[in-house]
Amino acid sequence: MQAEIIAVGTEMLLGQIVDTNGPFMARQLADLGINLYTETIVGDNPERLEEAIQLADSRSQLTILIGGLGPTKDDLTKQTVAKHLGVDLMLDETAMKQIAAHFKQAQREMTPNNWVQAQVPAGATVLPNTIGLAVGGFSEKNGHGYLILPGPPREFEPMVTQFVRPLLAKTYHPDEEIISRVLRFYGIGESRLATELADLIDQQQNPTIAPYIKADEVTLRLTARAHTDAEAKKLLDQTEQQIQARIGQYFYGYGDDNSLAQVVVTALKAQHVSITAAESLTAGLFQATIGSIPGASEIFNGGFVTYALAAKASLLDIPTAQLEHDGVVSAETAIAMARQSKAKMNSDIGISFTGVAGPDELEGHPAGTVYIGLAFKNQEPVAQLYHFSGGRNDVRRRSVMSGLSLILRALQAENK
Amino acid sequence: MQAEIIAVGTEMLLGQIVDTNGPFMARQLADLGINLYTETIVGDNPERLEEAIQLADSRSQLTILIGGLGPTKDDLTKQTVAKHLGVDLMLDETAMKQIAAHFKQAQREMTPNNWVQAQVPAGATVLPNTIGLAVGGFSEKNGHGYLILPGPPREFEPMVTQFVRPLLAKTYHPDEEIISRVLRFYGIGESRLATELADLIDQQQNPTIAPYIKADEVTLRLTARAHTDAEAKKLLDQTEQQIQARIGQYFYGYGDDNSLAQVVVTALKAQHVSITAAESLTAGLFQATIGSIPGASEIFNGGFVTYALAAKASLLDIPTAQLEHDGVVSAETAIAMARQSKAKMNSDIGISFTGVAGPDELEGHPAGTVYIGLAFKNQEPVAQLYHFSGGRNDVRRRSVMSGLSLILRALQAENK
Repeated sequence: MQAEIIAVGTEMLLGQIVDTNGPFMARQLADLGINLYTETIVGDNPERLEEAIQLADSRSQLTILIGGLGPTKDDLTKQTVAKHLGVDLMLDETAMKQIAAHFKQAQREMTPNNWVQAQVPAGATVLPNTIGLAVGGFSEKNGHGYLILPGPPREFEPMVTQFVRPLLAKTYHPDEEIISRVLRFYGIGESRLATELADLIDQQQNPTIAPYIKADEVTLRLTARAHTDAEAKKLLDQTEQQIQARIGQYFYGYGDDNSLAQVVVTALKAQHVSITAAESLTAGLFQATIGSIPGASEIFNGGFVTYALAAKASLLDIPTAQLEHDGVVSAETAIAMARQSKAKMNSDIGISFTGVAGPDELEGHPAGTVYIGLAFKNQEPVAQLYHFSGGRNDVRRRSVMSGLSLILRALQAENK
Repeated sequence: MQAEIIAVGTEMLLGQIVDTNGPFMARQLADLGINLYTETIVGDNPERLEEAIQLADSRSQLTILIGGLGPTKDDLTKQTVAKHLGVDLMLDETAMKQIAAHFKQAQREMTPNNWVQAQVPAGATVLPNTIGLAVGGFSEKNGHGYLILPGPPREFEPMVTQFVRPLLAKTYHPDEEIISRVLRFYGIGESRLATELADLIDQQQNPTIAPYIKADEVTLRLTARAHTDAEAKKLLDQTEQQIQARIGQYFYGYGDDNSLAQVVVTALKAQHVSITAAESLTAGLFQATIGSIPGASEIFNGGFVTYALAAKASLLDIPTAQLEHDGVVSAETAIAMARQSKAKMNSDIGISFTGVAGPDELEGHPAGTVYIGLAFKNQEPVAQLYHFSGGRNDVRRRSVMSGLSLILRALQAENK
């Protein structure tokens, strides 16, 4: 089974937007065991689009067209596919009502062009758009499938997750259940992970194991196929167990929509542990990261950005002479910052970040040298030294991630 | 003149990485007046790559191959292009020396495969790689050009900027100078900008005008071609003047590598103005943004994250009764936070952020309601009310951008 993606939109060929839909779809296809050998990006030009569709016909069984469903005269994907299939466009009544209601609510005049968004090639299965106005469609002709999907990622992604994936699973794997599970790791690099799991990844068949590298973390996507949900789940469990036995110490959570910050805030809330911070090189980035998670106010009241030595002294009441003696980039200062922030905010945890973001060195320490201090409940405060690579903002981001990781480990250790 | 991009890499077709090289190259081609009608993404498969190259031969005059230059057995782009051109690969001596030196310095054993990175098809112009080991190349056959470029963006982008763009300009526009200028705007949306400049964009020819939408800002890339640098510059000046006359109030700076934060920190440093902040819903994000700019320590000592009401009272010495009377989401509280942070840090500017990030409402105010307070030097502190759309982190990010914009306007007003 072979699929092909055709992404439609002149703005991609002018470099004005990056195509994230293709990779998103590609991950779904990999899950479903459908091979993707080619993605083609074409502009809003019906002749070149028709050429691309013909080429895809000649070498695939499923063509996935993304974009060009809008109401402007440039949006011609549906028209071109309908012509290619030799059918008319038909209006979907549910979509028509949705469009009419939208314009009524927005008190805007509707143009006839807007009806195109409610159309699909005659005979197509309609794919609802829960966010925007343009519906998608799935047509079949001569055993070849044609998916038509909207271009804006916030419309495209939910449509794929909610409607396209189940449709493809039912169409191309009618007797199988397909389940994916995403495992998230922090603190292990891509190459180290590949080494540790080399034999598992080489032998993978069912479940498949797909690593996905983000800025500071690695996720593994396991996908199993079986006749029943329970069998597929069992396959996932077995493979996960093998993986956890090898790199479980770096594991922090499950799911596509998750993050180390999310897991830490959730754990803090569950264990009713409050937190504060004193930040030097990160300048507020740790606290902003905590604050990015809804409901953070349950465990976070506020804290300190102590960028300069004077601020460490005045805001945290650390004697200037002590700071000068220990140096700003030191375990002693990190510990003092963590301890004092905890005391002043009356929190269960105080965490501190002090070091050299770069590009210049500081106190003779090279860029990337960072001490993270942790005052955890009644435990003796500790500091850990890191040497991060990368530019100024890599160092700052990695500091925050490492701080979150330290807190998670401390919370877990307490729960054991 | 028509070009075609072929991006090579199975990891893109598995959705493990997003192709940013294509759009980067696309912008350069647009600048150079070279049409790009198709980008094809293929895996590490020499047969399918050869097919894509043949197809590109049939409809373009320049084929740009990106990726697949590494030392692994999967990396076959150079070999495939050489075979297509009917030539051998040849070693570039400079690149060989660079590779040998790299392995000596890293004290790692070199494998024969690594020499492939120093090869280009015989007769090609070698394009140096200033970051990594794999050189690029430019070949010509029967009037068709073939560019071979490395896949990692941190190697690809500098190679394009430093070597490919000048090479293409010289090859395809031998008698012209081509200059681009990037104008950056904040506070004007994409559709508003398109409306304001509709006639200019419709009539564009020389200079071309290309809008590029980022998360919270819009950039316009003007590109002029002329016989001399001075003539091209004059064309740019004229068009810029027309644009500034219409939307100059949203303009904040020039250049690809620039940001509102960069411009604000640069202005603060130039005018020797120090700053602090008291942040509620942004929880440190404003200060972290200031701290992301190298040299921020000249104008920023530190500040306050006052997420909860209690922290606004204790860290900023604002009476609890006053906060409860005014409400946390109010102009009065924003002003008190700005004034008190300025006083406590002894700064020239104090800025504050208080409001509702969401998803839930607060004190009866819907998510997106934000007050930004500004205590600017000896001026009477003021507060401005915003209603931001989007999710929790859109609201927080837009708050920070609006705060930066307020500061820039205040600094500019002072300089007039």
